[in-house]
Amino acid sequence: MSVSDPVANLQALIRCPSVTPAEGGALSALEAMLTPLGFVVERMVASEPGTPDIENLYGRLGTEGPHLMFAGHTDVVPTGDEASWTHPPFAAAIDGDMLYGRGAVDMKGGIACFVAAVARHIEKHGPPKGSISFLITGDEEGPAVNGTEKLLKWAADKGERWDACLVGEPTNPDQLGDMIKIGRRGSVSGRVTVHGIQGHAAYPHLADNPVRGLLPLAQALMDPPFDGGTPEFPASNLEVTSVDVGNLATNVIPAKATFTFNIRFNDTWTADSVKAEILRRLEMAAASSPLRPNREPVRFEVVWAERPSHVFLTRNNGLIASLSGAVESVTGKTPALSTTGGTSDARFIKDYCPVVEFGLVGQTMHMIDERVALADLETLTQIYGTFISRWFDNALLS
Amino acid sequence: MSVSDPVANLQALIRCPSVTPAEGGALSALEAMLTPLGFVVERMVASEPGTPDIENLYGRLGTEGPHLMFAGHTDVVPTGDEASWTHPPFAAAIDGDMLYGRGAVDMKGGIACFVAAVARHIEKHGPPKGSISFLITGDEEGPAVNGTEKLLKWAADKGERWDACLVGEPTNPDQLGDMIKIGRRGSVSGRVTVHGIQGHAAYPHLADNPVRGLLPLAQALMDPPFDGGTPEFPASNLEVTSVDVGNLATNVIPAKATFTFNIRFNDTWTADSVKAEILRRLEMAAASSPLRPNREPVRFEVVWAERPSHVFLTRNNGLIASLSGAVESVTGKTPALSTTGGTSDARFIKDYCPVVEFGLVGQTMHMIDERVALADLETLTQIYGTFISRWFDNALLS
Repeated sequence: MSVSDPVANLQALIRCPSVTPAEGGALSALEAMLTPLGFVVERMVASEPGTPDIENLYGRLGTEGPHLMFAGHTDVVPTGDEASWTHPPFAAAIDGDMLYGRGAVDMKGGIACFVAAVARHIEKHGPPKGSISFLITGDEEGPAVNGTEKLLKWAADKGERWDACLVGEPTNPDQLGDMIKIGRRGSVSGRVTVHGIQGHAAYPHLADNPVRGLLPLAQALMDPPFDGGTPEFPASNLEVTSVDVGNLATNVIPAKATFTFNIRFNDTWTADSVKAEILRRLEMAAASSPLRPNREPVRFEVVWAERPSHVFLTRNNGLIASLSGAVESVTGKTPALSTTGGTSDARFIKDYCPVVEFGLVGQTMHMIDERVALADLETLTQIYGTFISRWFDNALLS
Repeated sequence: MSVSDPVANLQALIRCPSVTPAEGGALSALEAMLTPLGFVVERMVASEPGTPDIENLYGRLGTEGPHLMFAGHTDVVPTGDEASWTHPPFAAAIDGDMLYGRGAVDMKGGIACFVAAVARHIEKHGPPKGSISFLITGDEEGPAVNGTEKLLKWAADKGERWDACLVGEPTNPDQLGDMIKIGRRGSVSGRVTVHGIQGHAAYPHLADNPVRGLLPLAQALMDPPFDGGTPEFPASNLEVTSVDVGNLATNVIPAKATFTFNIRFNDTWTADSVKAEILRRLEMAAASSPLRPNREPVRFEVVWAERPSHVFLTRNNGLIASLSGAVESVTGKTPALSTTGGTSDARFIKDYCPVVEFGLVGQTMHMIDERVALADLETLTQIYGTFISRWFDNALLS
């Protein structure tokens, strides 16, 4: 079987129902594509107390440098109501010029195209002048604790080193060629608890309403903005995502009130400095709440969510230029170099090598009727193939 | 059995476990005290769909005017952990100079003293030169829908008319003689729902965080103060009593957010005008939330709680002077004429006749080890007795 056809590759992958944490046969299907191309494939199971064991895959073609990694995941989000799908989510049905199925764009499609691109590269040029590896996890859509982070460490501990990485997540908002991701904002979350004194609403002087403390604290985190953005990044943005008191009695002043927040921050900040700024704002607001009759400081505490995501920006011009040039030569479009959007596993990879992200159009990801244009699969395969050639040419020159 | 001893009366009442909605024998015990004094006692059961039936009592001594009503309730709040009580809550144990039991001060004690005061008045002066009635409900601590309001209407429909009312609720903060209540603030509650658009925290421009609308709305209700108070009333005060979003995912912007509030308002306002002011503040804050990047108006709605409590102030000088003079002559203290604190059933009575409130010291009400000083029971009986004499003297003169 030839694996140079991305459509056939993607159909094989979609037909494996690999909803996190199930492997569903997807990594085995990928292994069956890589082995005939000459990849040495290893399967690594990661464990963590309190979470299901997760299967991961690492396959390498070649033994020398330069070394290009392709990273991604075969796990997919749940289907939602299967009856609402035009075609069953794991059937990989082709309808007109579209291929339907869960994972079609996020991101079995990216894997299918990169496999096809490598196969065509070998057919045309022979094995790469260096190494290509696939680092593929089954834990990206879930808690992501038994995935890319552990897999990278496991491979690095065995001596693996990489010169660059391409993540195949869907990065294009509308059309193939719109956008390359060259960095990601960081993300920090926390919960603030404000303490008061319970009492009767008719005797407010005997109580201390924590909501009077909470409102200015929550407001201080959202206003003013943390920054105005940087050349490469949009402005940092904090959202108070929940406020919860849970007091059902309207004549009772509650004893405490909590709110949660999440900030997506740019390279003006580090996770530590943004936490310090958040604390500074909370303490300033707590010192002078205009809503508290006694003007005493608000008593509060912050609990930070574990594992902040660190901000990063890839400044490797050779990597970016190879990818951007490949996109432009195949599509005629100049892709935006973006740092918008949510976090991705690139946040782990950037500690090992420069990383960029480019994949399919993300519009239908996580939705009923997730689907991809057949033409996009062919175009992305060509972009990936051009990128492989350009990247190795560039790496060997420098 | 003589009912001129308030301690014995109170012990008999406490021994009836009349936790709302249970009658627990308390009204029967009271009826057994009143009938020998010459009262014509009627028991009235009030019903409302969705609530338990409640027993109430109305007893009248005399047929002519002037007509003085004593109002109160025999139902009590739950005991809490009975094992935490020094003496069982329904044992009516005397320990040193204190009598322990649920309802001791709120407000079986007030009833026990008024019965004793009437008994002594009859012993000393014969029947009153007019009428005295007891209007006693079993639904004050509960939803209060089958209590004083329905009992008043039932009696009025039968032709009963009153010239004045004394409510025997505990009104004294620290010592007997501290405080008479001559009015009550009104109370209005509501729930505000702010609508937004759900989305991912990393793409705030595609979402609309309702918390950004909620914070200024909630703040606008608490700041600035509604007024600075009036000669007879403390300042109106609004508390936001709960804020609830219930969003568990820190990377998700929620679709809506709600908060509840309660305002205790003075005679600067009516229930309608205070609602209008609340709406005005919400609309003003909604028009210009500094936290909303697009500055579009906040979409919100208010649902008012049913049945606001209306503010009232008793301006009957004869009634107030009779009570205040009685307190002063027995205790040597000049009681404050207050309008502070929560609502009481006086809010219903004020539609039928002038009403004042005076009873025991409220410190232990609703608490474990609710208790009353034996000396206070004797003193309150004397105050009530002096009040009865003075009020009839005054009413017959005018």
